[in-house]
Formats: sequence, C-alpha cells, structure tokens
Amino acid sequence: MNNFDYQNPVRIVFGKGAISQLSDLIDPSLKVMMTYGGGSIKRNGVYDQVTAALKNHNVIEFGGIEPNPTYETCMQAVEVARSEKVDFLLSVGGGSVLDGTKFIAAAAKYDGEPWDILSKGAAASEAIPLGDVITLPATGSEMNCFSVVSRKSTQEKLAFALPYVYPVFSILDPETTYSLPKNQLRNGLVDAFVHVMEQYATYDVGSALQDRQAESIVRTLIEIAPDVLGKQDYASRADFMWAATNALNGWINCGVVQDWATHTIGHEITAFCGLAHAETLAIVLPAIWKHQFEHKKGKLAQLARRVWHVTAGDESQQAATAIDKTVAFFHSVGMPTSLEDYAIGKAEIDKIVSRFAERKACFGEHQNIGPEQVGEILRLALKK
Amino acid sequence: MNNFDYQNPVRIVFGKGAISQLSDLIDPSLKVMMTYGGGSIKRNGVYDQVTAALKNHNVIEFGGIEPNPTYETCMQAVEVARSEKVDFLLSVGGGSVLDGTKFIAAAAKYDGEPWDILSKGAAASEAIPLGDVITLPATGSEMNCFSVVSRKSTQEKLAFALPYVYPVFSILDPETTYSLPKNQLRNGLVDAFVHVMEQYATYDVGSALQDRQAESIVRTLIEIAPDVLGKQDYASRADFMWAATNALNGWINCGVVQDWATHTIGHEITAFCGLAHAETLAIVLPAIWKHQFEHKKGKLAQLARRVWHVTAGDESQQAATAIDKTVAFFHSVGMPTSLEDYAIGKAEIDKIVSRFAERKACFGEHQNIGPEQVGEILRLALKK
Repeated sequence: MNNFDYQNPVRIVFGKGAISQLSDLIDPSLKVMMTYGGGSIKRNGVYDQVTAALKNHNVIEFGGIEPNPTYETCMQAVEVARSEKVDFLLSVGGGSVLDGTKFIAAAAKYDGEPWDILSKGAAASEAIPLGDVITLPATGSEMNCFSVVSRKSTQEKLAFALPYVYPVFSILDPETTYSLPKNQLRNGLVDAFVHVMEQYATYDVGSALQDRQAESIVRTLIEIAPDVLGKQDYASRADFMWAATNALNGWINCGVVQDWATHTIGHEITAFCGLAHAETLAIVLPAIWKHQFEHKKGKLAQLARRVWHVTAGDESQQAATAIDKTVAFFHSVGMPTSLEDYAIGKAEIDKIVSRFAERKACFGEHQNIGPEQVGEILRLALKK
Repeated sequence: MNNFDYQNPVRIVFGKGAISQLSDLIDPSLKVMMTYGGGSIKRNGVYDQVTAALKNHNVIEFGGIEPNPTYETCMQAVEVARSEKVDFLLSVGGGSVLDGTKFIAAAAKYDGEPWDILSKGAAASEAIPLGDVITLPATGSEMNCFSVVSRKSTQEKLAFALPYVYPVFSILDPETTYSLPKNQLRNGLVDAFVHVMEQYATYDVGSALQDRQAESIVRTLIEIAPDVLGKQDYASRADFMWAATNALNGWINCGVVQDWATHTIGHEITAFCGLAHAETLAIVLPAIWKHQFEHKKGKLAQLARRVWHVTAGDESQQAATAIDKTVAFFHSVGMPTSLEDYAIGKAEIDKIVSRFAERKACFGEHQNIGPEQVGEILRLALKK
C-alpha cells in the first residue's frame, strides 16, 4: 500500500425528508444564493421543499447552470455573488450545478483571473462556503473537492481541486431522483462505475481492503441497475445514491495508484462533440483497457473473478472477459460504447489528438498515454 | 436504508515514516502532553521517532496508561493537564492509550464531576484537542469519537462518545506494529472482526453497499490473518491497520441497524474477570448468535455465502455454518471462545447478571436482551 493522507470534512445528511433540515444546516444570519440548473427542480417539488425549509432565511437565486457547467454562466453568477455580498452558496441539482457552484465559490473570492484556477491550477486561498441538495447520483461531487467546468468560447473542459470547495454539508434524499429520466439514471450508473475503475483497474500495490471496497461499489451498481432503471423504489435509489457518493469521495483511492485517462480523453470528446460526460466514459474505458491490456490484466482478471465470479481461463482470458462483461453492463443499461454510435469519426479524432499534442503531457497510471496513444485508443473505440 | 447523518473530521496520515510529519501536524506554539502506556514505545523505537519529530516543540509526558485505561490513572493525567495548562494531547500507543487520552481531553475541560461523562452521559461542551500515533490495529479509536474507560474501585467499564474527542489527526505507520506480541495481534484481528459484525449481523434494512463494505473488511481480515501472525511484512500489516480503522469509523454503519450486545456483555466480563477486551468478544459473539439465531439468520446466511462462499444448505444451515466458520477463524488465530477456557463459571455469570438486573436496560438491535437473556447467553458460552 502506498502512503496516503486522507481527510474529508463533508457532512452527509441522508434520507427521506432530509431537505427539511436545511433550516438548521444554514445559519439564518447568512445571505444565501441558491444555484440551480434548467428548472427541473421546479417541476419535481425539490424547489418547493428547499424554499419551504429556508422560508426564514435571506435567499437569492441563480438558475440556468448547464449540464457541463460553463465558465461563461458561472462568471455571471460570480458577479451576482460579489455584488450581492453572498455569504453562502446552496447548490440544488445534480453534479453539474454543484461543480459550477464550487467554481463560483472559489472564483468570487479570487483576486486574479478566475480562469487561471482551471487552466493553470492557480491556488485560490478561500471560497464562499457552500452546501448542496444533490438530486442526481453520478458525479460524487457532493463529497469531494473537485469540479469540472467548460469554456464554450475555447471548447475547453478543465478540472480543479481545492480544499475550500468541499461542501459543508450535502443532503441526499433518494426520493428526489424519482423524476429523473432514464438517460440520466443510465449516465449516473456508468459515471459511478467508471469512477471506481479509474481508481481500481491499474496495477497492484497491495491494497486488499480498498480493492474489495471498490468491487463492493461496482457489484452494487450492477445488482441494482435493473431496479434503478425499471422502477421508482426507495431501496434501489438509496443504494444508488450512496454508491455514487462512495465512488468518488476519496475513500477507495487511499494508498492506491490511479488512472483517470478515461476522464482525460472523455472530457475532450465532450468539449469537441458535446456528448454527455458518462457517454464519453463508456466509449473510452473499454478502448483504454484493450490498449493497456498488458499493464492492466492482473486487476481486470481480479475484477472478473470477484465481481462476475468468472473461474474459467487464465489471467489474460479472465481479463478479456472483464472487458466484455463491462461492455455488456453498459449495453444493459442502454449506454452505447462506440464513437460510431454518435457518428464521430476520423476528423474529430484528429482534432482531439491535436489538442493533446499541444498540451504535451502524458497521463494514465504509467504516464504512457500521449497524443499518439490517444489516437490509437480512439481508433479502437470507433466500432463496437 | 435508514436515514443517517455522517461526518468524520479525522485526518489520517498513513504509511512508512509518517511519524516524522508530527513536526508539521502540531502547531509549535502549543504546549503538548504526550500520553503513553507501559513503555513498549520506548523499546520499539516509536518514542524516539516521536521525540525526534517534536524536538522543537514544548512537550511534557504522562506514561502508564493501562490496557483498559482506568479512571483513576486518567484523573491523575487530568490534574497534570490542568496544572501544566496543556493545549494539545498526543496519544502514542494502542487504543487503550487513545481511549484514555480522549477521556483526559474531555475531563480536563469539564467543570462538573468527570465520572458523569461516563456514567451519566454528561455532555461536556469542549475538550483539549488531541492527535495520536496509533501502534496497534484493533479498536478503531483513531477515527472515531468513542472511548471506553474502567473504574477499578467500582469494577465498572463504561463508554462515552463526544464530537470534541475526534482526533485532529491520526498517524498510522504499519511498521510500528512489527514489535507487537502475537496475542495482541490476535486480539486486534478479533476486535476488528467483531466491530464489523456488531454493525452487520442484525437484520436487513436495505443497505446493499454497506453490507458489501462490511464483508470486504472481514474477508480482508481472514485473508491476511496468517501473514499478520506469521511474519513481519509491510503489506499485511498495512492492510490490517487500515481494516481495523475501517471497522469502526462510522462508515459501514451509515443507515444500518446496529447491535453492540457483544460489547455490552463483554465489558462486564472484563470489569469482573479482567479478560482482554477481544477475549471477551470472542466468547460472547457466537453465543449471542446462537441465542438470537432466528432474528439474525438472514444476515448470517449472507455472511456465509459471501465471505466463505458457502452454497450448500438452506438459510438456517448456512447461518449455522457462519457461526462455525467464525469460531474456527477465532481458533485459527489462537483465540479461545468459551468461558471455561478462562475458568469462569456460574459464580461470575451470576455477578454479571446481577449487574444487568441493577441497570434494568435491554439492548441488542431488538432491545430484547435483558438480565435473564444475559444469563442464557453466558451459559451458552460456558463450553466450546
């Protein structure tokens, strides 16, 4: 096991009716800006629950944060937060609203050019405190200090991490997911699955417990997926919400080696082609596993044995089975896994490869994926 | 899944050489009191590492905290902490030293009778901040706000929980465990195993992920036990340390039903008969499972299937197998499982039953274990 340093200050308030606790969770002397997305919270009753809980608080609103939140929209919110002297941000919605809100929180307190927080890793030294009501199990943003923001004007999608943007609290009420459309549930299942794999399917450094914890999450996702997609029942939605949080809250990556190449490439597909985040992950993950097969086959074979109870075959055969089973899982939830499913071809691949060529950085757990390898991986992803 | 509220502020600094980070982890302007036990840290090099890291800090020492730390000793430390105006407590040792230090931290700041914190659940409103170097994987005290303290004069062993006694940081260096004698390693393995079971072997409330996370810990403990006991290698000691922390840091009990009857009865065996904590757990757990078989068989059968891959038999047979396999695991690490192994008989059982009769409280996940049932359980535990 590698050395590690772990701390996560987020308070999780989980369960039916938890939104009503907002009145106690936010000091009534604070000026609150509630942020949200396209307005689904006004149709599914979440907005009403939040405003009822905060009826004695001083709350202003900023709506319209997009899926893949944009720098442009967030900067409008920064202006409002500054001019209105907002003390606390409350994100109500999915991971995109929350990621946007994290950026707003840091940018509003940053004296320099806020884009530098994303593009240059500029170390903001404070942020407006924030909390959230998370309504979409997927990104894990509710229990981490990460955020991903896109800039429309330059077709860039970049991430940052700052300890000041850990939510003070996150409210997870599984009932808020009942109104989600199937494609968002599907995206959430795949997103959480791939988050786990970025922290698991690398190479063995001796982390017996973390491996099993990671397997616990994907096993749970596979088990509950039919109910999540097929019904509106509390049990499977609760398991789903908690699994998505566990997939990216820093717990399973304690002391292990991480990959994140799938995300790195996937972000560029979203930036250039507009696919949803999870759609890009389902395309890239199997292709990277094929491309990096020799490096990853030990862990992939373990995945096959423990998650799908595969006993036949040698290590390579078991690892290949893990790739097949993963693709089959994605298909079972209705998720395409090839670029051609989205009519993406050579022209877009060239654009993406050029972007990596400009950056000159290599990535993946062996730092062996550069522009050339990105091209190879994306060509592997062209067809099913 | 039941509703829950989770937050854990502890910073974990894990790995080889981590003790050297103490110099940065504790503000040098603070007056530190280092607490420790019987002096093993002076023989195994840990004391030297700590004092080297803190050579520019203002540190006083308080040694001699016992296994099953006593109120009497802790109150001597409280006097020192108060008179020396100590700002920070650093516990160096196992869970007993840390539990004692948590009590010292709360008692030193408490205006009333400190025993009330234990006997009446008196809510102390602050504590001296504390950190620790944990050297024995067992209690999980390094990442929770619990403490158990014994009072010699009255033969009582009582627990308290206060948010103010979460360690600010916990340093876990697996190399500090190399000098542990086999019986302490054995005790740690059993302690961690039973902690998981107190949060797992109850009844199903729909907690798919937490169940698998709990199974991950016990599966890991079973897998590494031979190496932990048989060699001094880093990999298995690292897995052991992290598994013990995970067994009682509030994570696997999110949204589930808990038991703790084994601990409640075990504490009285320690109080009256002086057995080590883990020794009592290994005696009581199988007896409670037999006594509460009808209530617990669903979860026990799941344990058998998932941890020991049992496929034969119906639910009751699988549950019975889980009890047998658990007892066999305890025996495999050299842990006795009956009262007669310690020459404890009817006279001691009567004393313990009388203690529960005085308290009039029922416990266990169904609140159905009172004095009469304690007698039945202990009689089931008389013989192997």
